[in-house]
Amino acid sequence: MSESEPESPTLSRRRMLNLASASIGTLVASPALADTLADVPPREPGADLSAHSERSKFVQIGRIPEAGPGKRKVDPDEAINSKTPLQKLVGSITPSDLHYERSHSGAPELDPDKHRLLIHGLVQKPLVFSVDDLKAMPSVSRVVFIECTGNGWENWKKADPNLTVQNTHGLVSTNEWTGVPLKFLVDLVGIDRGSRWMLAEGGDAAGVARSIPLTDEILDEAFVAYGQNGEPLRPAHGFPMRLVMPGFEGNLNIKWLRRMKFGDQPWMTRWETARYTQLLANGKARQFQLRMETNSVITSPSGMMEIRPGYNRITGIAWSGHGKIARVEVSTDGARSWKQAQLSHPVLPKAQTRFQIDWDWDGKPTKIVSRSTDEKGNVQPDRGSFIAEMGRNALFHYNAQQTWSIDEAGRIRNALA
Amino acid sequence: MSESEPESPTLSRRRMLNLASASIGTLVASPALADTLADVPPREPGADLSAHSERSKFVQIGRIPEAGPGKRKVDPDEAINSKTPLQKLVGSITPSDLHYERSHSGAPELDPDKHRLLIHGLVQKPLVFSVDDLKAMPSVSRVVFIECTGNGWENWKKADPNLTVQNTHGLVSTNEWTGVPLKFLVDLVGIDRGSRWMLAEGGDAAGVARSIPLTDEILDEAFVAYGQNGEPLRPAHGFPMRLVMPGFEGNLNIKWLRRMKFGDQPWMTRWETARYTQLLANGKARQFQLRMETNSVITSPSGMMEIRPGYNRITGIAWSGHGKIARVEVSTDGARSWKQAQLSHPVLPKAQTRFQIDWDWDGKPTKIVSRSTDEKGNVQPDRGSFIAEMGRNALFHYNAQQTWSIDEAGRIRNALA
Repeated sequence: MSESEPESPTLSRRRMLNLASASIGTLVASPALADTLADVPPREPGADLSAHSERSKFVQIGRIPEAGPGKRKVDPDEAINSKTPLQKLVGSITPSDLHYERSHSGAPELDPDKHRLLIHGLVQKPLVFSVDDLKAMPSVSRVVFIECTGNGWENWKKADPNLTVQNTHGLVSTNEWTGVPLKFLVDLVGIDRGSRWMLAEGGDAAGVARSIPLTDEILDEAFVAYGQNGEPLRPAHGFPMRLVMPGFEGNLNIKWLRRMKFGDQPWMTRWETARYTQLLANGKARQFQLRMETNSVITSPSGMMEIRPGYNRITGIAWSGHGKIARVEVSTDGARSWKQAQLSHPVLPKAQTRFQIDWDWDGKPTKIVSRSTDEKGNVQPDRGSFIAEMGRNALFHYNAQQTWSIDEAGRIRNALA
Repeated sequence: MSESEPESPTLSRRRMLNLASASIGTLVASPALADTLADVPPREPGADLSAHSERSKFVQIGRIPEAGPGKRKVDPDEAINSKTPLQKLVGSITPSDLHYERSHSGAPELDPDKHRLLIHGLVQKPLVFSVDDLKAMPSVSRVVFIECTGNGWENWKKADPNLTVQNTHGLVSTNEWTGVPLKFLVDLVGIDRGSRWMLAEGGDAAGVARSIPLTDEILDEAFVAYGQNGEPLRPAHGFPMRLVMPGFEGNLNIKWLRRMKFGDQPWMTRWETARYTQLLANGKARQFQLRMETNSVITSPSGMMEIRPGYNRITGIAWSGHGKIARVEVSTDGARSWKQAQLSHPVLPKAQTRFQIDWDWDGKPTKIVSRSTDEKGNVQPDRGSFIAEMGRNALFHYNAQQTWSIDEAGRIRNALA
């Protein structure tokens, strides 16, 4: 595996322009013809202004409700995930209605006037807050990714070549969340010195509840959100309030938050014993593996797309629960050599970062793959190394590199490598 | 007017906590009672997962279609603006379907497979591009505000006390836009040295067309967008492609972009002669006043809201076409004294920046107002100074400070000051 080439991150500008120029756009034969093309055809007035701008009828974009591992086509009643269409998105922000959804008992429609948040346990002053109470407090807004800890597990087990990136990686999304810093709430109730853990419980029928260690990082960064991409949370994403835990497992970002209890040890709920523990190669289970690791995936071209020889643009997203993405490298020869991709700015900590690189495809079958490195120096592993370390029993925190194969007809397929 | 106090930007942390603690939340009398409250009532499974997460039925949020100056209640056929509900939004991002809309002939529904972009004029190689052509090119993603140059004009003329901030300032919004750098397109067609201006024309029935000077700043920053908050543009916002001109008049951000022509002088279209020229106090008209100035407005509490004495949180947005917001000050005594507000990070150039400050209201009638300063040192003027400089003939680029009055009952109203 050769080193990446930071000095020459992409094709030279001149070469790229020449390539793009040869394959993109249609030349207009003469200025006179251009002037003719400039003439506008007859046009009718368009739609009236309205309260909301809806999507174009020409745009088909939606999530895929799916069941657990290996079951993609399911009865809607059995769906537990609804995956984000990463292959159709650009930039870093996920539209609110396309943010991935993971549910244990469906999305309740809570009345914000009746909903309350109870904070109690090892505190000086147990308090109950309404949604309006939260909105009156100091707030923080932050663009962060949330990722289901099960994201990508199908490729851990076996490859289905006919998967899209929505199937393989659609359980990660990035929104701007707004809410009250956990630190402010902690100061209001006055937690005891002995409080080292916090139980966060949701108001859904499943009553998802997780024990969260009160590290400095979590006290500094966690918040109780009521806003999502500028507007109130949507029911599927926790309306009227949810916990946001930047960098940590999706299931800790408790939706429909109704209770936070402080204590000196974890509560060992069924969500951290029967579920969301990691079965290791030696048969023991690891608890509280909470942080999401450095990850990346090429979203275009990706599974089930087709490309043509010549100039192509490779783009994707990278993210890490440790902080900022420092570097993304892309290989177009099956991980033999790597080139450094360009990152979209600003690169925000614990948020999706868009990367891109240009590529002159010679038309021969090959494989493309990305790998990310975060600011703490964590490098996204290849699949072989990842399995050598984690074994094959585990289900969560899959962050191995995603390889797409390309055949001589330009067809992109999911591949294990 | 006293200087602001950067050393002590808000109430002291302890005092703020005490104030907030006294007015926010309900004390739970005993740990035993808290445990009772922790018990969950019977709950039913929620809604199934789906392709899209819709809004809660409890959330009423939408734009207001309005006509021109002074006419807020109109026949829908006469509406030319649809204003963003700033008083209901948080953070910096505007949801795509709530981004303000300004239209001259409604929103056409263009077929992306048929739409083309012609680039011609003083170029080496006139070219025609499809939407797919653009998507194959290097891209940039950027969070920027777009603002109608007429935003705020009602208060320039006379104050209606019963306006909300949606009425007074709802023609500014911030999205993450994704598209192709103008510089890349310019290099592909090879513009002549003599090209100093660019005509950008829309594919709507009105055929809005503006002449844009090719300054270094514009060549570096403008782009042709096809993405908005991660997804394809919505028809009301230019689907399938629009020009994005960070920092400049909204009407330059040509929607439904169908043509860019390069030349050595402006075209003097009716959009820069009959419309969008600024009538000065001396009766002469200023053309090509393109940059949006530093601005800010308190969005909560704001027009038609009510507050109670004691702890209150003041929040709003600030933006400048010159670059980043450097500072926002808030006065709670009718512009006699000012305190520096806290800014949400990251502060991005030419994007909405959220500000907030806490306040202990003594229950006496007063006025609240914000003023922004950008990184170039431009300070948002008070209304008197603004009118002294610009006169009363003009209609555009109103960026005077917005004052809200508060009466003894806590009612907030629009005020001129």
